[in-house]
Amino acid sequence: MITREYLRESHSLIKPYIHDTPVLTSQYWDDRSGSQIFFKCDNFQKMGAFKMRGAAHAMLRLSDKERSRGVVTHSSGNFAQAVSLAARSLGLKAYIVMPENAPEVKKNAVRGYGGEIIEVESTAQAREAKADELVQQYGATFLHPSNDLNVIIGQGTAALELMDQIPDLDEIWAPVGGGGLLAGCGLMADRFSDGTQVIGVEPYEMDDAYRSLETGVIQIDQHGYTIADGLRTFLGDINFPIIQQHIDRIERVKEGEIIEAMRLVWERMKIIIEPSAAVPIARLLSHDEAIANKRIGIIISGGNVDLQNLPFKS
Amino acid sequence: MITREYLRESHSLIKPYIHDTPVLTSQYWDDRSGSQIFFKCDNFQKMGAFKMRGAAHAMLRLSDKERSRGVVTHSSGNFAQAVSLAARSLGLKAYIVMPENAPEVKKNAVRGYGGEIIEVESTAQAREAKADELVQQYGATFLHPSNDLNVIIGQGTAALELMDQIPDLDEIWAPVGGGGLLAGCGLMADRFSDGTQVIGVEPYEMDDAYRSLETGVIQIDQHGYTIADGLRTFLGDINFPIIQQHIDRIERVKEGEIIEAMRLVWERMKIIIEPSAAVPIARLLSHDEAIANKRIGIIISGGNVDLQNLPFKS
Repeated sequence: MITREYLRESHSLIKPYIHDTPVLTSQYWDDRSGSQIFFKCDNFQKMGAFKMRGAAHAMLRLSDKERSRGVVTHSSGNFAQAVSLAARSLGLKAYIVMPENAPEVKKNAVRGYGGEIIEVESTAQAREAKADELVQQYGATFLHPSNDLNVIIGQGTAALELMDQIPDLDEIWAPVGGGGLLAGCGLMADRFSDGTQVIGVEPYEMDDAYRSLETGVIQIDQHGYTIADGLRTFLGDINFPIIQQHIDRIERVKEGEIIEAMRLVWERMKIIIEPSAAVPIARLLSHDEAIANKRIGIIISGGNVDLQNLPFKS
Repeated sequence: MITREYLRESHSLIKPYIHDTPVLTSQYWDDRSGSQIFFKCDNFQKMGAFKMRGAAHAMLRLSDKERSRGVVTHSSGNFAQAVSLAARSLGLKAYIVMPENAPEVKKNAVRGYGGEIIEVESTAQAREAKADELVQQYGATFLHPSNDLNVIIGQGTAALELMDQIPDLDEIWAPVGGGGLLAGCGLMADRFSDGTQVIGVEPYEMDDAYRSLETGVIQIDQHGYTIADGLRTFLGDINFPIIQQHIDRIERVKEGEIIEAMRLVWERMKIIIEPSAAVPIARLLSHDEAIANKRIGIIISGGNVDLQNLPFKS
């Protein structure tokens, strides 16, 4: 049983290592949706994404002995940067397993935060084998980007902060990729709200979480291509039961809606969000009447984009 | 004599029509500069730029009779949108003289805010003649984008708010184009601070304000091309004496520094700023020791960019 006290302590533990990110509102989105929309801006989080929360929390829950041996993860995305920066902040060694064909810009970001990159072939087997090897070699602790209870709780602090900042939300919307953020939000809403519903949003092209909830079995097949690169991953056996228990439902959006939502946020709100962060916002473009007349919090998950490769077309 | 009371009243008058924009800080820029930098985010202002302040203020100081006859301006930039939106908010008619070759996206923005566009040839004579004609025809009041005392005071409320939010600033930096914002900031710092210096920053390629201060005569020749499109204009006889009296000095930055500063703000702060807004921030890239160990407020003047035409190169 994860108590409210434990969760509050989790937030207190990570606070010195994260930003208490602001909540923004927008007349445009309020008018368009007929609801009050509160954007929890973790694009302003350290290293540019909510992943910093889970990485820092997981490390802070390690024993001194574990900390002295460092941490290992495999990721080519925001979690790699989060583990690198959190490890540096806490004085730990971080081993980051990355595919050898990962973009140089992502490798440089990890190196910039002090992570040690170990390159492997671009297959799931290769990266898992290498991570296991590093765990064996250094006695380091493996941190999974989304299927780890302390990572999940850390990510959930985004929702906890949001509920502290904006009381009485009817709903909280978050993107679903590996499921860590969504599970964390569900857990926090269950423990700290009076009936706030948590809704996951994912691309139709990558609706494994939707199908997992429908079937009751984790789906690990991808049937399309989504621009939301942070969401190209599957649920895990630790976060799936939490999602089943605490998430109201999962909604899906189209690729064109994701790009349009991203463009509208850039143009109207003047803030930079990444494609994965645009996924829940894209739901505001639907004409679903269920969206109106509510107080809705949306987690903006990150703002790391490649400015040389933007999806906007004239 | 413009009293403190008049200026406070100006701010109170426009408050219902503008956003009280946030002040952001950034570890990156603090580390890089050795100073504490406070960014006054008027890119989050209504219609995306500080120009809303001056337009609203100038209209609010009109008599009922004047208001009933509407307002005229000539601009193809942010001031055209500001006058259109402020006029709609106050129930006035707005006539916007624009060059016939102005980008369709800018015309659409003006129409979207309810302004009536009158197209003319793309020459200074043509737009001034047409504006005069509209003033005669409708008895409308002409509002100059930068050389009008009530516009200047309105723009200055950005600095007044900033000083209310962040006390004891050593310096306030603002971009210089037509000089309205800079003059307004100088006036406010003179009336409401204990020695806060106001510094204008402009591109080397368009350093008419620098040369105007050096020579004591308004310079109206342009010798280069700047990406900071909002600054491609000259000082006027109303704002120049205020600038001479209340501005400490004008610093200049290079085109490459402007683009680099814009990119760094997008990447590190995750906020969208336009090239003109990057001009004072570009000064932080210099290695001038005069920048260190201070509390510096920087006015981020706007965030209106064409996402299909960004200056970032790989």
